[in-house]
Amino acid sequence: MTERAIEGVRVADGRFEGTSDKGETGEHGTLPIIFRITEATVLKPLAHGGDLGEVVRRFPNAPRPWLDLSTGINPVPYPVGALPDEAWARLPSRDDERALLTAAAKRYGVRDQATLLGVPGTQALIQLLPRLVPKSRVAVLGPTYEEHEVCWARQGHDVSVVDDVAHAASADVLVVVNPDNPTGRLLSAEELGRPSRLLVVDEAFIDFLPAAASLVSKLPPRTIVLRSFGKTYGLAGLRLGFGIAEPSLIARLREELGPWAVSGPGLAIGRRALADEAWLRTTAARLEHAGRRLDELLTAAGFTPVGATSLFRLVRHDDASAVVGRLGRQGIHVRPFSRQPQWLRFGLPGTDAAFLRLASALQEGVSLG
Amino acid sequence: MTERAIEGVRVADGRFEGTSDKGETGEHGTLPIIFRITEATVLKPLAHGGDLGEVVRRFPNAPRPWLDLSTGINPVPYPVGALPDEAWARLPSRDDERALLTAAAKRYGVRDQATLLGVPGTQALIQLLPRLVPKSRVAVLGPTYEEHEVCWARQGHDVSVVDDVAHAASADVLVVVNPDNPTGRLLSAEELGRPSRLLVVDEAFIDFLPAAASLVSKLPPRTIVLRSFGKTYGLAGLRLGFGIAEPSLIARLREELGPWAVSGPGLAIGRRALADEAWLRTTAARLEHAGRRLDELLTAAGFTPVGATSLFRLVRHDDASAVVGRLGRQGIHVRPFSRQPQWLRFGLPGTDAAFLRLASALQEGVSLG
Repeated sequence: MTERAIEGVRVADGRFEGTSDKGETGEHGTLPIIFRITEATVLKPLAHGGDLGEVVRRFPNAPRPWLDLSTGINPVPYPVGALPDEAWARLPSRDDERALLTAAAKRYGVRDQATLLGVPGTQALIQLLPRLVPKSRVAVLGPTYEEHEVCWARQGHDVSVVDDVAHAASADVLVVVNPDNPTGRLLSAEELGRPSRLLVVDEAFIDFLPAAASLVSKLPPRTIVLRSFGKTYGLAGLRLGFGIAEPSLIARLREELGPWAVSGPGLAIGRRALADEAWLRTTAARLEHAGRRLDELLTAAGFTPVGATSLFRLVRHDDASAVVGRLGRQGIHVRPFSRQPQWLRFGLPGTDAAFLRLASALQEGVSLG
Repeated sequence: MTERAIEGVRVADGRFEGTSDKGETGEHGTLPIIFRITEATVLKPLAHGGDLGEVVRRFPNAPRPWLDLSTGINPVPYPVGALPDEAWARLPSRDDERALLTAAAKRYGVRDQATLLGVPGTQALIQLLPRLVPKSRVAVLGPTYEEHEVCWARQGHDVSVVDDVAHAASADVLVVVNPDNPTGRLLSAEELGRPSRLLVVDEAFIDFLPAAASLVSKLPPRTIVLRSFGKTYGLAGLRLGFGIAEPSLIARLREELGPWAVSGPGLAIGRRALADEAWLRTTAARLEHAGRRLDELLTAAGFTPVGATSLFRLVRHDDASAVVGRLGRQGIHVRPFSRQPQWLRFGLPGTDAAFLRLASALQEGVSLG
């Protein structure tokens, strides 16, 4: 092999010499050699809803079990039932993957299965896409789910959060969560469209809106749609989601994710759940009822509605952080937002008992307030 | 935003114009605009063991169920048992991840938990590592599991397959499957070591060797060790594995994989199984017994031993492809190798009935041959 230039690294005597001290430094040896890994912007990990560990430690005397309303995950999961032994034991097969994609294509209105990819949660695509796109100007329509912004910034893109699509005119990539988490803002294909840029549409919360709200069936060029399974079906631990895009991009993403990306349980449960139209209809009605009940309860407790999807409500309160504390002391976890300190997001309580517990805690909050 | 150069792409009027025609071309529109995704070498997907679909179609009259001996996966899985509802329903929590890592650290002899990462199958790391390393000269010690070679080549590295570590002297990255799949070749830390390059050691089949065979406890600088969960525990569908490396690389890999990379069932089952020393001891004895029984059977049937690990045997036969056909017609799937046409890999039969079926099929093969 002849010596050749390697990006940012000079090779001499078969050893790496980093051209900067930003590379990975060995912690186990004393050699002056640095093995360099491509650079990435190091960012503070985001706080997410749904992780009770820290809040339980913060409120050690709160009554248990905790009522976690900090996510937009359906609180009444699809029944997992018994899985065939092979789902656990065998490597996921291509036939099983095709069966999952057939069910997903029907469910989501995908016309061409070559435009559809199953992934271990849409987060896998949120992480991967910024690595495949050359350094770009990226506009994220905000405020929204912060992982999009963070993942594009980590890979060195020039990221702006804009509050209107009109302000994204010069962007090469536009990222929109539609309907938005947490505001519920919903844009039409016409409002999103401009085929000269890459459009990433995260439709995590679209399942209970009319099919026409989704970009899937009329997939515009240079668009990738993300669809979440775990939120609607209440199975966030399973890690299952989908990407829908033109076949060349799907083929590339499939290669980058590699074989067996979706687990055996993911294939087995996903296939069954996505074909279960009766469950989805029942769930839609149940969620709508629960949403109205939550609206009444929050309005009565003095919150101002800001936005909503079928799986959560966003409200405003002048003293939101005090509300988080009051509810926390009563074992109820809701989602605050560091950038919008007056906002709170409430997931739907899943049972009558959960509704009554929230109502009682909110009343106590008001009387204490 | 000011206009700025983007790698390989000129931005003009807010539109992309690809500098080559290798980019992604829109299939849904007629616009002459090309949105470019970073280039990658397109490679034919690899054939893997463990996917019966194609072989079942090739031998439509074979007796069912098929006996799949085409993988190196333990045929007697760890008992999954009932999982807590939260493992499916909730987002995997950091506390649950820490519990998994604590069990894995104990099991694998990892001293510092900051050097350990759980992943959804080691394939996820095999895909990811080549994207994080600047373009390098990569030597893969072969013949071995081909995904390593393919994943490094896909990301544009200069990849050679070498048959001796001595021939990798000029490589910036050395990849070794240790013990090797399929040859069983086992190298010592001294044979592998030279801290000036990145060393990737895939220890997928090391679990039943003495702990000293692994690089984990004495982790050399600039080394990443991959440990597979699914093979030893017979749960390949679960998608669980681990990476062990210095803390700075582990932190970077953790960021690149993102939150919730390991599923709820993966956390729950992995944590339980990795702490179950009695099951592992029993399994080691059972596999050793099954391996000896398989050796006798293969030798009696005229195969020449080439190599072995505790989970498979590699043998040579002058007419290996005919053997694949004969066994296939009897519903038994074994693993051929396109580059070594005389080789066959046999996984371990999991039951007496499976052993008897294989013995009978091999005898018939001999009499037909």
